Order: sequence, then structure tokens, then C-alpha cells
Amino acid sequence: MSNREPSVIGIDVGGTKTLGLVIDAAGNVLLQEKWPTRQGAAAVTEMLAELAQELRSRIATTHKVRGLGVGLAGLVDSMGRLRRAPNLVDADEFAVRDLLEPRVGMPVLVDNDANCAARAELHAGVAVGVRHGVLITLGTGIGGALIVDGAVVRGAAGMAGEPGHMLVDPAGPKCVCGLSGCWERYASGAGLAYLGRRAADRGDLASLVGTVDGTPEPIRGEHITRAARLGDPEASAVLDEFAWWVSVGLANCAAMSDPEMIILGGGLVRDWDLFGPRVRRHLNEVLVAAEHRPEIRVEPAAAGEAAGALGAALLAADETGLRP
Amino acid sequence: MSNREPSVIGIDVGGTKTLGLVIDAAGNVLLQEKWPTRQGAAAVTEMLAELAQELRSRIATTHKVRGLGVGLAGLVDSMGRLRRAPNLVDADEFAVRDLLEPRVGMPVLVDNDANCAARAELHAGVAVGVRHGVLITLGTGIGGALIVDGAVVRGAAGMAGEPGHMLVDPAGPKCVCGLSGCWERYASGAGLAYLGRRAADRGDLASLVGTVDGTPEPIRGEHITRAARLGDPEASAVLDEFAWWVSVGLANCAAMSDPEMIILGGGLVRDWDLFGPRVRRHLNEVLVAAEHRPEIRVEPAAAGEAAGALGAALLAADETGLRP
Repeated sequence: MSNREPSVIGIDVGGTKTLGLVIDAAGNVLLQEKWPTRQGAAAVTEMLAELAQELRSRIATTHKVRGLGVGLAGLVDSMGRLRRAPNLVDADEFAVRDLLEPRVGMPVLVDNDANCAARAELHAGVAVGVRHGVLITLGTGIGGALIVDGAVVRGAAGMAGEPGHMLVDPAGPKCVCGLSGCWERYASGAGLAYLGRRAADRGDLASLVGTVDGTPEPIRGEHITRAARLGDPEASAVLDEFAWWVSVGLANCAAMSDPEMIILGGGLVRDWDLFGPRVRRHLNEVLVAAEHRPEIRVEPAAAGEAAGALGAALLAADETGLRP
Repeated sequence: MSNREPSVIGIDVGGTKTLGLVIDAAGNVLLQEKWPTRQGAAAVTEMLAELAQELRSRIATTHKVRGLGVGLAGLVDSMGRLRRAPNLVDADEFAVRDLLEPRVGMPVLVDNDANCAARAELHAGVAVGVRHGVLITLGTGIGGALIVDGAVVRGAAGMAGEPGHMLVDPAGPKCVCGLSGCWERYASGAGLAYLGRRAADRGDLASLVGTVDGTPEPIRGEHITRAARLGDPEASAVLDEFAWWVSVGLANCAAMSDPEMIILGGGLVRDWDLFGPRVRRHLNEVLVAAEHRPEIRVEPAAAGEAAGALGAALLAADETGLRP
């Protein structure tokens, strides 16, 4: 067994699915596995240990595993602790690294899932060669990553790249984080649904409301995009308002970091054809001095469903010396 | 003359005053000179060339000048051009470096004045040893700098660190930049005056209004701070609202960059005792998950009036190899 090749494992814990994979020193994916996500810190620890063991044993004849990278949604600090996770059940102050390292017997590196996705985009996605960038994931909530000089910035405590709770409207609705008027209330999947319900409350979207329950409450983001695809002009207007809010937060991120590229990932990117061009147009309206600066490229993420797990593996590869 | 010591010049072009100085390889200030700022790109070029020549001739017996660093308010790109300068007269698309290099016969490095101030704070101010930080200057407008891994980030086009025009209120007042609801409309010197006039319009600040002109229009920021110092509770309330808006933008910057320290500079820092503690308190209210992360230190700038010129000189020192 002494001449086995070195490798690392990466696991991305999503809200419903958890994806694990193994990469070699060149960053090639050797094998991949998807499990349903368990709920609560203890069950997630157990799941991570079991999935890592499963991946390690399946590759054991040819590869030695040198480390484990884990990506999670929420504020992850530089000690490998998930400090605050509004979108996971019972996972605040979850000491992922300290709980997992004794179970798996190898170094465990933990980072935010959007930071992991940004590593994947830099390595093999749309951001290969990008020096300064911002990655934003638009899903149920908003995740983010700041790229400076070709690398993901962790910040002082490991928590850089969390733009979802930037305040963009002091009169805005209450957020899950306890504050009000956060960007995430408008520019996420939940935000699109909110904008749809608000439009319905003022009497728009009558035909869409008819197809759900006769009331605005059940409206979800996918109802808006589906109606817009079918040519409903009021659904199209809601989508445009949504794209404006997306671009407001992108402009706020860009004002501080001056990126050459903004990468948009997350579930909403499936409808890129509907809102991508609108986001590009509005960004030029709300970015200060847009006509005096090079155009910022706005691109959909390209590393696919396994981006988070690949990025977590790349983090482990960097930190264990698998990649120079 | 062949054994003269190497040195560089730094000049900071302010709205009314321009300060130039010379530093040696250790960063010591050898001499300093202050001139009134001339208006318009051609006159500023002339002034910069003359001031550089004056400084060079005064130090000529002992020091050879290797380069010139220039700091200016506005969006400066990595080619040494001032692309957009809303607070200077007739200075958009001002090719500072290309106009000045033939005049002074040495390398000219140009950056935003707040980026320069951040270099000075890192070198000899409150941010010595800081790895991740944000510097914000609160003056007539708002300037900024992003510090990652101990260095000022220029970004893709050189324009990083311009948070003044982040949108923080879609219902907010029109901004000089052409957009509406920018942070600068609330959290700058002009913003403090606006908040004061708004309070007076709704009937507050009656005794202050009596001291100016009997109407809200002439209210300026210094009227508010003076009245607050004299114990006017309504002026104090305006100052608290101002501090809340300052903290909103700081929290937005911190969400993306996770700084260990936020440095506040600019003219408003003179009244630090009045609003510094309020900004610290509000930041803990509006920063997402503040209770799950290390406290961000908020400190007044310490490098003084010459910070911009010193930072411009440090930039020139770095780029000409005077500093390793």
C-alpha cells in the first residue's frame, strides 16, 4: 500500500443533499457520492464521518487520503467552527473541525460553501485566470465569496464574503437574521417570492394567483419564472424588479472590491436566460461611474452541482500541501 | 552628488489644500509643504509639477528623488488616470500620470486619497500590524480603502475601496453621482447636514434653527455637533441617527471583507468623542451575527493631516523599489 497516490476528500453539506468526492493532486475528480443531508449538528457530524469513511474505503487500493475539506452554508470561522447558520437546523456554534478530526483521523478544513464554490470556479469554472472577483450564490438565501489576487479571501475571522445581510432598505421587511431590509430579503429565491406576493397584494399577477390558490400566500419564485416564460407581462415586471435588487447588491459589493468578474451561482442561475441580461443592464445603471470604468463581466457559475464539494477538496489540497 | 540618499515625494491633493512631503527609505518625513489647491485638471497638473520641483530642489544637496506618488479624491484607475471626481472641479478623465511624468522626469504613481491614507495608517498609524481592515474617510463625501493581508487592494481596474455610493436606501435623496439613496447622502458631512435639515423640517431643532437664519436651509454639520456639545437633546438625536447610518455602511463593508479593524478618518473624526461610541454601539446592532463573531475594532485614524501625502509617498516607495 505504500505506493498509493495522495488524494483529498471534499464534502459540501447542502440544505437537502450532501455531495462528497475525492480528487488527486492534479485536481481530477476520482469518484463522487451524494447522500441526503441529516439535520442537527450531531447528525451532520455522524454523516460527514460516515461519508468520508465510505469514500476513503472505495479508493483505498489506489489512493491514500491526506485530508478532508468541508463546505457548509453560514458563517464559518478560521477555527473550523460554523458560528451561525440561519438556513440549517440547530447548527449555530457547531465545532465541525474539532468534532470531526478525531472521527476521521486526518486534518479537517472547513469553509463557507460559497467560498468553496469560488475555489472551484477559479480552478475549473468560469473564473479561471480571474484576479479580482466576487461570487454570489442566489438560492433560498444569498452566499458570497471575495476573490483578491486570484485567491478567496477568508478575512480576519474567516467570515469574509457574507453579503446577504447588507442593509439595502431601512424600510424593508424583517429578515431571518433578526435585522430588517437585508439584500437577501429581495435578491434570493425567498426574495423573488416576496416580490411576487407584494405584486399580487397590490392587484397584479391576477392570472398567476388564479393558478395557485386564489391568494398571494402560496406564490413561490418558480411560479414567477414560469409565468414570465409563458409571457405574463406582470410576472416579467416582477422578475425585472428582482433583477434590479440583485444588481443593487452586486454594485454594493463591487464598489468596495472593484472586481473584473461577478460570478452568479445557486439555484436561481437555472433561469439565467430570464434574469441574467436584466442583471447586467441594471448593474450598469446602479454602479457608480459605470461609464468611467471597464465593464464588469457578469457570468453564471460553470463548475456545476459539485462545485462546493470540489472547492472544499481544493481547500484541503492547499492546506495539506497536496497542491503546491 | 553621487552619494546622495534615495527618497520619494508624496503629494495629496485635497479639496482646498495640497500637502507634499519627502520620505527616505525608512519612511521618515524629511520635509513637508502645504499649498492651496488649484482648480481644474490643467492647473492641478501645473501645481503638482511645481510643488514636486520645489520639494526636490530643497532636498537636492542630500537626497536624490526616485519617484512621485500622488493621492486624489475620486476613482483612480491603475493607469494613473482620475476617471471620475465628483468633488473636484473639471477633473473627470484626468490623465494625471501621463501629463505629469514628462514634466517631472521620474515615475509617477497615482492612487485614490483614501487608499493612500490607509497605507499611512498601516505604516505608522492605528493600523500597524493589521491584516484585514477597512478604512473609511468621512468628509464632505466618503472615501474608502480595503486592506487584505496587510496591503491595500487596488482591484481589477485600480478602483477598489469606493463605498460612498453603495445604495442603502432606495427611497433616499438624489446623490451628486446621479444615483439615489447612496450611503454618502447620509453618512458624510453633507449627510449630517441633510439629517439636520430633515429634522428641522419636521419641527425639531427649533433653538438651533433660531441661531442660523430661522429656516432649516443654512444648517450644516458643524451646527449639529456644536448644539449637541451644548446639550441640545434634539441635536444629539440627529447625531445618533447619523451614527446609525455610518454604522450601516460599515456593516455592509464588513459583511464582504470581515475586517479585524475599521479605521475612520476624514474631517468628521474631529468630533470622535461625540459619535465614535455611538458608531461602535450601532455597528453591533446592524452587523449580521455580531454575537457570533469577534468584535470589530472601530478606531479613529491616527496618521494625522499628512496621512494622504505620506501614503502617496509610500506607494511611490513601493513601486520604485525604495522599500523592499
